[in-house]
Amino acid sequence: MPGNGPSFVLVRPQMGENVGAAARAMLNFGLDRMRLVAPRDGWPNPRAVAMASGAAGRVLDRAGIFRTVPDAIADCTFVFATTARSRELIKPVMTPEHAMARARELIEGGQRVAVLFGPERAGLENDDVARAHAVISVPVNPAFASLNLAQAVLLCGYEWCRQGTAQPAEMMGLGRSEFAPAIEIEKLGDHYERCLDDAGFFFPATKADSMKLNLRNLWTRAALTRADVQMFHGILRKLVRSREK
Amino acid sequence: MPGNGPSFVLVRPQMGENVGAAARAMLNFGLDRMRLVAPRDGWPNPRAVAMASGAAGRVLDRAGIFRTVPDAIADCTFVFATTARSRELIKPVMTPEHAMARARELIEGGQRVAVLFGPERAGLENDDVARAHAVISVPVNPAFASLNLAQAVLLCGYEWCRQGTAQPAEMMGLGRSEFAPAIEIEKLGDHYERCLDDAGFFFPATKADSMKLNLRNLWTRAALTRADVQMFHGILRKLVRSREK
Repeated sequence: MPGNGPSFVLVRPQMGENVGAAARAMLNFGLDRMRLVAPRDGWPNPRAVAMASGAAGRVLDRAGIFRTVPDAIADCTFVFATTARSRELIKPVMTPEHAMARARELIEGGQRVAVLFGPERAGLENDDVARAHAVISVPVNPAFASLNLAQAVLLCGYEWCRQGTAQPAEMMGLGRSEFAPAIEIEKLGDHYERCLDDAGFFFPATKADSMKLNLRNLWTRAALTRADVQMFHGILRKLVRSREK
Repeated sequence: MPGNGPSFVLVRPQMGENVGAAARAMLNFGLDRMRLVAPRDGWPNPRAVAMASGAAGRVLDRAGIFRTVPDAIADCTFVFATTARSRELIKPVMTPEHAMARARELIEGGQRVAVLFGPERAGLENDDVARAHAVISVPVNPAFASLNLAQAVLLCGYEWCRQGTAQPAEMMGLGRSEFAPAIEIEKLGDHYERCLDDAGFFFPATKADSMKLNLRNLWTRAALTRADVQMFHGILRKLVRSREK
């Protein structure tokens, strides 16, 4: 899954734990290109490694370390800056959704894309944002905006991944089961109808047809597996037998 | 912003910190209806309160506490269960995106919707999932799936919010500035063209027209503010004056 995604650039991150958490958040969505600008506590950072664990640790191992933002984005042709606050700077502001769609287009066109994330407490400085072509702003509750570094990384990674995969609106999780073919549903309906007829269930006679129709409809609507069908046959046999005793 | 969103039900959460972080994640996206099923360390939980802070603390104050999942969802007409692993249970599986779009439709239709989130370590049990109408599964990197509780809550909250707000693809962040009207851009172009003509810049003469056209185009493309225009006039005056000395 990892491949030629954008580089996520953590600018002056403070806590090693947060760098590790950001690496995990990235890798969840197949992103493995991290760059670090002047991490406060130096590099490598054992707390970052402890938090990352496993495959995410390799994201840290391969992370590029840079002194300044211009150094870190030197080879990039399009740079996004994530920021919560509105800025004096004149710059296109995009949602993560549209920014990551744009990033996909740019990367498919051979561009190199970076996304800047600011330090935990204060976020990016205007000097950093001025070096970006566009701003990414997550549309949060204006009365309560409290995304942390790893969460901002997570949402951008999620959108990167979502933009690249055609997701079916809904898919039936079946496990090892398989749906019953129509013939089995039909026979199940026959079985119930016959036994219920014998038991005098369809009463009064004037309502019998609509009762039968509703029952047929129910079997189809239930999306039964082959095992379900067998179970319903078994239930019926059991009930009929105990009634006959 | 908070209103009639879905209830997010944390099932047997272990760490109070994670309950607090989930409340923050929810409120970021305007969701304030939390329910708790049998929190491991009892309730109220000071660690949850310490993590939540401010407005998110009020989400905890108002959270409903229940002994079992059936109790917690008793009044709900549609229940989603979030789960990472594939299940033997036969159930529609949806992305957060499509699930939250469905949730909006359901709620607009007067339904009461709940989303179940499992305990940190093990996730929801089959007994819990069996009580849901559909499963939400975040499409993560199959080689590295490590979403924690608050992150799962965050992504569902983000999608709830995203589905409900028409986001412009791009919007220009202007701060207190305003774009220059065309007349000012035109005069700026005139000023430069005149001075550069005087300076013999447009050479050779056969290329002068296309050079001028390119320069006109550049001023428009740059999306200058009124302050930018004044600055460029100032630059030109300064350069001309120093050349004339």
